[in-house]
Amino acid sequence: MSRYGAMYGPDITFLGVDRCDLTDPETFRDADVVIVGAPFDGGTSHRPGTRFGPMAIRATDYLPADGSRPHMALRVDALRDLRVVDAGDVECFSGDIETSVRNIEEAVATVARAGAVPVVLGGDHTIALPDVTGVARHHGFGRVSVIHFDAHADTGDIEFGSLLGHGQPMRRLIESGAARGDRFLQIGLRGYWPGPDTLAWMAEQRMRSYEMSEIVSRGLDACLDEAFEIALDDCDAVFLSVDVDVVDPGMAPGTGTPEPGGFTARQLLDAVRRVCTELPVAGVDIVEVSPPYDHAEITAMLGNRVVLEALSGLAARRRGITWRPDRPLLEDR
Amino acid sequence: MSRYGAMYGPDITFLGVDRCDLTDPETFRDADVVIVGAPFDGGTSHRPGTRFGPMAIRATDYLPADGSRPHMALRVDALRDLRVVDAGDVECFSGDIETSVRNIEEAVATVARAGAVPVVLGGDHTIALPDVTGVARHHGFGRVSVIHFDAHADTGDIEFGSLLGHGQPMRRLIESGAARGDRFLQIGLRGYWPGPDTLAWMAEQRMRSYEMSEIVSRGLDACLDEAFEIALDDCDAVFLSVDVDVVDPGMAPGTGTPEPGGFTARQLLDAVRRVCTELPVAGVDIVEVSPPYDHAEITAMLGNRVVLEALSGLAARRRGITWRPDRPLLEDR
Amino acid sequence: MSRYGAMYGPDITFLGVDRCDLTDPETFRDADVVIVGAPFDGGTSHRPGTRFGPMAIRATDYLPADGSRPHMALRVDALRDLRVVDAGDVECFSGDIETSVRNIEEAVATVARAGAVPVVLGGDHTIALPDVTGVARHHGFGRVSVIHFDAHADTGDIEFGSLLGHGQPMRRLIESGAARGDRFLQIGLRGYWPGPDTLAWMAEQRMRSYEMSEIVSRGLDACLDEAFEIALDDCDAVFLSVDVDVVDPGMAPGTGTPEPGGFTARQLLDAVRRVCTELPVAGVDIVEVSPPYDHAEITAMLGNRVVLEALSGLAARRRGITWRPDRPLLEDR
Amino acid sequence: MSRYGAMYGPDITFLGVDRCDLTDPETFRDADVVIVGAPFDGGTSHRPGTRFGPMAIRATDYLPADGSRPHMALRVDALRDLRVVDAGDVECFSGDIETSVRNIEEAVATVARAGAVPVVLGGDHTIALPDVTGVARHHGFGRVSVIHFDAHADTGDIEFGSLLGHGQPMRRLIESGAARGDRFLQIGLRGYWPGPDTLAWMAEQRMRSYEMSEIVSRGLDACLDEAFEIALDDCDAVFLSVDVDVVDPGMAPGTGTPEPGGFTARQLLDAVRRVCTELPVAGVDIVEVSPPYDHAEITAMLGNRVVLEALSGLAARRRGITWRPDRPLLEDR
Amino acid sequence: MSRYGAMYGPDITFLGVDRCDLTDPETFRDADVVIVGAPFDGGTSHRPGTRFGPMAIRATDYLPADGSRPHMALRVDALRDLRVVDAGDVECFSGDIETSVRNIEEAVATVARAGAVPVVLGGDHTIALPDVTGVARHHGFGRVSVIHFDAHADTGDIEFGSLLGHGQPMRRLIESGAARGDRFLQIGLRGYWPGPDTLAWMAEQRMRSYEMSEIVSRGLDACLDEAFEIALDDCDAVFLSVDVDVVDPGMAPGTGTPEPGGFTARQLLDAVRRVCTELPVAGVDIVEVSPPYDHAEITAMLGNRVVLEALSGLAARRRGITWRPDRPLLEDR
Amino acid sequence: MSRYGAMYGPDITFLGVDRCDLTDPETFRDADVVIVGAPFDGGTSHRPGTRFGPMAIRATDYLPADGSRPHMALRVDALRDLRVVDAGDVECFSGDIETSVRNIEEAVATVARAGAVPVVLGGDHTIALPDVTGVARHHGFGRVSVIHFDAHADTGDIEFGSLLGHGQPMRRLIESGAARGDRFLQIGLRGYWPGPDTLAWMAEQRMRSYEMSEIVSRGLDACLDEAFEIALDDCDAVFLSVDVDVVDPGMAPGTGTPEPGGFTARQLLDAVRRVCTELPVAGVDIVEVSPPYDHAEITAMLGNRVVLEALSGLAARRRGITWRPDRPLLEDR
Repeated sequence: MSRYGAMYGPDITFLGVDRCDLTDPETFRDADVVIVGAPFDGGTSHRPGTRFGPMAIRATDYLPADGSRPHMALRVDALRDLRVVDAGDVECFSGDIETSVRNIEEAVATVARAGAVPVVLGGDHTIALPDVTGVARHHGFGRVSVIHFDAHADTGDIEFGSLLGHGQPMRRLIESGAARGDRFLQIGLRGYWPGPDTLAWMAEQRMRSYEMSEIVSRGLDACLDEAFEIALDDCDAVFLSVDVDVVDPGMAPGTGTPEPGGFTARQLLDAVRRVCTELPVAGVDIVEVSPPYDHAEITAMLGNRVVLEALSGLAARRRGITWRPDRPLLEDR
Repeated sequence: MSRYGAMYGPDITFLGVDRCDLTDPETFRDADVVIVGAPFDGGTSHRPGTRFGPMAIRATDYLPADGSRPHMALRVDALRDLRVVDAGDVECFSGDIETSVRNIEEAVATVARAGAVPVVLGGDHTIALPDVTGVARHHGFGRVSVIHFDAHADTGDIEFGSLLGHGQPMRRLIESGAARGDRFLQIGLRGYWPGPDTLAWMAEQRMRSYEMSEIVSRGLDACLDEAFEIALDDCDAVFLSVDVDVVDPGMAPGTGTPEPGGFTARQLLDAVRRVCTELPVAGVDIVEVSPPYDHAEITAMLGNRVVLEALSGLAARRRGITWRPDRPLLEDR
Repeated sequence: MSRYGAMYGPDITFLGVDRCDLTDPETFRDADVVIVGAPFDGGTSHRPGTRFGPMAIRATDYLPADGSRPHMALRVDALRDLRVVDAGDVECFSGDIETSVRNIEEAVATVARAGAVPVVLGGDHTIALPDVTGVARHHGFGRVSVIHFDAHADTGDIEFGSLLGHGQPMRRLIESGAARGDRFLQIGLRGYWPGPDTLAWMAEQRMRSYEMSEIVSRGLDACLDEAFEIALDDCDAVFLSVDVDVVDPGMAPGTGTPEPGGFTARQLLDAVRRVCTELPVAGVDIVEVSPPYDHAEITAMLGNRVVLEALSGLAARRRGITWRPDRPLLEDR
Repeated sequence: MSRYGAMYGPDITFLGVDRCDLTDPETFRDADVVIVGAPFDGGTSHRPGTRFGPMAIRATDYLPADGSRPHMALRVDALRDLRVVDAGDVECFSGDIETSVRNIEEAVATVARAGAVPVVLGGDHTIALPDVTGVARHHGFGRVSVIHFDAHADTGDIEFGSLLGHGQPMRRLIESGAARGDRFLQIGLRGYWPGPDTLAWMAEQRMRSYEMSEIVSRGLDACLDEAFEIALDDCDAVFLSVDVDVVDPGMAPGTGTPEPGGFTARQLLDAVRRVCTELPVAGVDIVEVSPPYDHAEITAMLGNRVVLEALSGLAARRRGITWRPDRPLLEDR
Repeated sequence: MSRYGAMYGPDITFLGVDRCDLTDPETFRDADVVIVGAPFDGGTSHRPGTRFGPMAIRATDYLPADGSRPHMALRVDALRDLRVVDAGDVECFSGDIETSVRNIEEAVATVARAGAVPVVLGGDHTIALPDVTGVARHHGFGRVSVIHFDAHADTGDIEFGSLLGHGQPMRRLIESGAARGDRFLQIGLRGYWPGPDTLAWMAEQRMRSYEMSEIVSRGLDACLDEAFEIALDDCDAVFLSVDVDVVDPGMAPGTGTPEPGGFTARQLLDAVRRVCTELPVAGVDIVEVSPPYDHAEITAMLGNRVVLEALSGLAARRRGITWRPDRPLLEDR
Repeated sequence: MSRYGAMYGPDITFLGVDRCDLTDPETFRDADVVIVGAPFDGGTSHRPGTRFGPMAIRATDYLPADGSRPHMALRVDALRDLRVVDAGDVECFSGDIETSVRNIEEAVATVARAGAVPVVLGGDHTIALPDVTGVARHHGFGRVSVIHFDAHADTGDIEFGSLLGHGQPMRRLIESGAARGDRFLQIGLRGYWPGPDTLAWMAEQRMRSYEMSEIVSRGLDACLDEAFEIALDDCDAVFLSVDVDVVDPGMAPGTGTPEPGGFTARQLLDAVRRVCTELPVAGVDIVEVSPPYDHAEITAMLGNRVVLEALSGLAARRRGITWRPDRPLLEDR
């Protein structure tokens, strides 16, 4: 293997799954899922630190790194029921956003072309641009709807003189045609950004953005039902992009642009599971976990669980499991 | 300007709004809102640190300090739609509670007399006494009802030999007649203080105190509906006093007397917005943010957002906006 | 007194209640409740630190350590309405799990024999084995149902070569007959442990385990209603075992094996109060509070409040108080 | 006993020594040393938190709170060789500096009159005023020289409108005559405060202030030799006042006004031991330990050790031990 | 003014000195010193966070932000004796190292051309390249020697595919001729980087690098004496570059690439003062202060003091003060 | 390989060196050094957490985990010049001290028998017993002198009823004859433990214990010179045991029983290098690094550097390098 390995720290894999090398197709042939680290934080407009996100999401757990995680409720073991391999990190020099974005897109496209679902561990949200684009290069521009959990719309135009950055990826994706504005579902928005011009642009694109007051008012599940319907309309696949700051910073402090008033961790995990069991997910990223601002690794752990819920959902969907959350855990199934 | 400035650190203003000088009426003529810092923590019965609250609430944000905060859901930009100026801090030597209380009351009364809404950044809850009194001096003793979010009733009598302190302001206000007991609405109480005698005194005053079990049992919105009705009955204005410890300490650890079992941050922000859009608010304080006990500035950020939700609510009310939270964010309005 | 005292730090008691000495029956004659510290963390599979749990749970409060805690909502003062005494710590050398478990069981049994309710402050969850066994030695093996709040089932078999440890106590209890599998109510489970074999064993024992998705789906109170009914069926008493990690780690970070997606602190406190007001509780433990991983003492404070809610519930039940949470706090009762 | 006890937290004593009650002379008759807590932080010009200093200094240790501390090098056990008792805290409402200062002075004077050495645990440096004055009331104004370890001269005049505060005690002491300016030895000063006027005032008083550059240049022991000689000239006793911020904040972060470039912890402990073995110490205070800013309790532990080194020095001096630090620890003595 | 202001947070100046605008020469005409913020951390090979360095270095102090800092020992008030102004931050998008470096160089050159000493607040050490180059553009390539305090040589060649970064500036400076290798004085190196090839390159350049063992063995002052002599040989001016990680991470944890075994904070402050009093300093930078990794702001405070010692040294040198550190602070001068 | 791997977290090796498997001699044949993790903290008398020491010491660095660390001053690359392999962790269930100690001793003896130097990463100091015993089983009881850097003598007899624990290993070693009392060199002791009886026992054993005051008084190098001479007298090899708490807790807070007044990190690194270059070291352990109490990984990093200095010293000694620390780093050698 000529595998690049880890940008920071020892070369570990997500909870101990097997390694693969993106330059060697044999190593991920038949993979269902390829984990890709994107340790980039050069696009953050405020606190950095997400470069250590991939390392933290891969390793933070109290259970052994043994490549097995039986999901208690779903009764799948995603790391075994699926073939999950970890490609290590893409080299992402945070001082060079253009090269980093290009490298990530190439890695993701390589995975998608191989028929596997890329699960990209960020990094800041800049990476959604190459993540979704890389997937769309395989599935077709405009054929992949986006389910986007976030406190922020990330539809800015130019920041600090740059078209690239963690506040702009969603605009770039719609502009390039990689994703359709009217199949862009944003869930969890709140706060004081962006301003009217950008909101007008978003409306023009016919984006569907669920602000937190709507979610509180109507209920998260009702909003998800509606969003899922839109996502499936005339699209072949779904990209799931999870910014951990969709959760309230009181529960997930380890992030760069914390906006109070968000989800509980429970809500996010339930929602991610629903997305991956109910929709044809073709790519996933989990971004904005920033270890320097974390405490007792709780945000890193949450990031790890977002990946596990996504993978478990994928596994349950593949195995055709229908799950009734209202039934007792231990009853016969 | 002979402006006092900041007691601690550089002389910054709330998110970059203009400065004013309370000794120079020209500087806040026509202001809708005047921010006043009350960096006092000499009245705390346990952990201090709220002296750094004003600085933290003013500055903690990932967005630029540019005097603009467009509220995504309400579609107002309170810092621009209203004329908001910042008077800096009142000198509050924490070792001298009497002088500090006197100085704060004078500053608040000056603002109220000028027809502006004082928004006081604490400091510990001692300051509710001068805050409400200062407003009542303008609007009339007994003419201002109080909406009080807090884990604690703050109706103690004497503590450590002092009539003043952060556990006693609500009693002093009712005793002096500045506020009426039967127009005192307390929301979020819980825990093991005060004891029966004080509760009996509170009942005698006909205070209406919503303990958390009632809120959980009946729903927060139902309790608010009821409270708002009482608040408007035979009163001309409302003072909103927000103790950040009404939120669960798990989500808002940066405070002095944390009592588990509280609101989520989301609940507080929603409630504050309701108060300021639905009621004639004449004064606001946000207290008990204690940076030394905070982590990753999440409580400071929450304090900042409480102010922004309050101001945005004031702006929406002034502009006669009717807002339907259950409608899509991006639909035409 | 030949009281052992505190293993770590000064010999303080729970919020200032009186001391007792388990070697001197006179000192706890007529006690309703005896607090016992079990500062043991040698059974943890991951982060240690719960040895400092008893000290933290006893002392963490902003109110004085004066042996009085009037419960605002229930209108009882458990520390005065009940005779509550504190036996100090059991010597628990964390390097010797067998001796520690034996010492704890003996202490708990001594309390139970004296007719008092032991309230054991952990320590890691290893101690549930001696805690429940000690109580069952008095009330009869199989006569005590167990209400177990936890993120984890703790029904493992052997870990690191040991039958004892914080992942195995519930299996040991059922195997020994101290507790019946079909009267074992687990509430709050989630995550990726244990695997299918252990779940199968649990099903065989006819345990009733409420995973978080069921709780979210059906509502916590509905689950508790059902669980309480089972608990009372052909059992004489209930043991309440609270692992603080049932609460989401975002709200209770000070613990050893944090699993995202849990209760809010409010939910736990409400549930504990219900258990102790509605069921004949004969023993309580609160475990897995790990101060080294805590922030601003919020988890320690939560542990303290779990004890206070339990004691207040016990007191209300003894005094025959019927409490309506939907009624105003200050109305006549 | 009508002992006041502890202002914050449980009523513990310094490492488990016996309690006394300052209102009951019997309880401290024959005491050599009386520990007094002064949990006051209302005089701080910046970060508060020293109100928790007494609690932290009393309890922070990894050894049991058993009233015994055999000093390995000096071969004394100060807590046993001397009669050391702990009077608990003086009530110090931080919002009322005048009453607090008066209460502390009275407590210290009571101890001094009884022939014991008061060891006062602060609290901010405001308390040096009542500490030294209380001792001087017994030994005579002007008869007690002061050895003052500190980064700051604390000779300010008026701050925030107050004559009292943690930046002014040394001026007040000299003005009142309690201490002589020319017997005031300051060791460890550095930084950018006070300005020329205050330095001129200090020179006029003939104070001897060792700035850090002089200490680095000449050596700490040479400076101490010189200072000790001055201290003994025409004075009967010495008061030792230790501000923990004399140590570099890199090694002692838990303090309110950290000034880089200070002592190592080792230097402070060696110096304190020298003072108490070589000089007739009549009173001690250790101030400015601020637990909210501490990490892993290292500054609290240092405060605890400053007290132990002082007490051990007192004990060695009483027992006439001559100690040669250059000799092997285990050789016969 | 069209001043850019602050990239992060409110637009404050170094301890309250006047603002200037680099696009308006009038605003810094006659300035002796211009403070420039370079909030760039895109060049770090490991932990980021230094983007918040300028903000932290400017503001972290317990004294008021009043534009005055009388140096107790030197008896100068650098912020008043010199004309010191603050240009705010250079826009440094951390994702674009090339533009950032260009912007910084231009800003520094502008200051140097105006005859003022630029004092650049980093930011990671990448900025030494534009800092020294900007100064050299005015004073002449090869005419400015460099005194470089650091744990690391920063003479790497290419890292993560980039010629620019915080490990390579010193090589780039020598390659470009901006600085001469044989007038490059490195002080405080230690550890396991770089390897033999780079050391050989450094030897070829005739750099003089003082590793910590040499400093311990010979004494810091002897090494400085020697270094100063080299620095003055056939050069006209000196650039002082201070990487805060030259101090031991135990005393200065808030940095990105901590290497144990360094200076004490005291040693650094004394050395910086010597450089600026004894040498013709034409430019200064202080880099690698990373607030996310700091505790209780001790490293930020140290960074602030490095600037103050440098400025005070400059002021003393300008005023021709000869200072004898071994003389008493308060004696007549 | 049937390698056990890592008890906690992913199975990484010390800075990326090759793995070996102690059950397969082929994997460490010809090894010069075998790293062994002993993640045991069941023997701590106070704060636990050292179970995470091996993981932290192996991984904490800002340089890549590439199995190469060129020592800048010594000009060796220990990880390449020596054959260093990492055996992973010994299973150490912290709840079972006897089994853990037995397992460690067997692992160490296996390494020693293979002719390699075991470098054991603790864990608490309990492990010195099996570490030294394991080495002595190969080199002969009484033939290995011990150089022991520590704040504590660790010569206690029985604690919490146990002969084993982190306060007793040195007594056990002398009692068993594994080590000779008169070849036991303790360096850095201080504080208030143990008491006279234990000191008397130590004197009887003719131990040579350098308390910090002797070290300050005579100089560390003089003490080391003397100690080295004793160590070499009639012994064949030396075991180096480094308790990280020998360093002042202000500089190394991440430890369990911090005792103020210790070494600087620099002193420890210099001393360790001297031991390994000047003496025939046959075994090393580094203990008491407790990550939960660390800040910004500075203590973990120090532990990592202690290992690197030891290995670099071993490499230099093997290669016959004579190093003059007073010579310039870059001069020809």
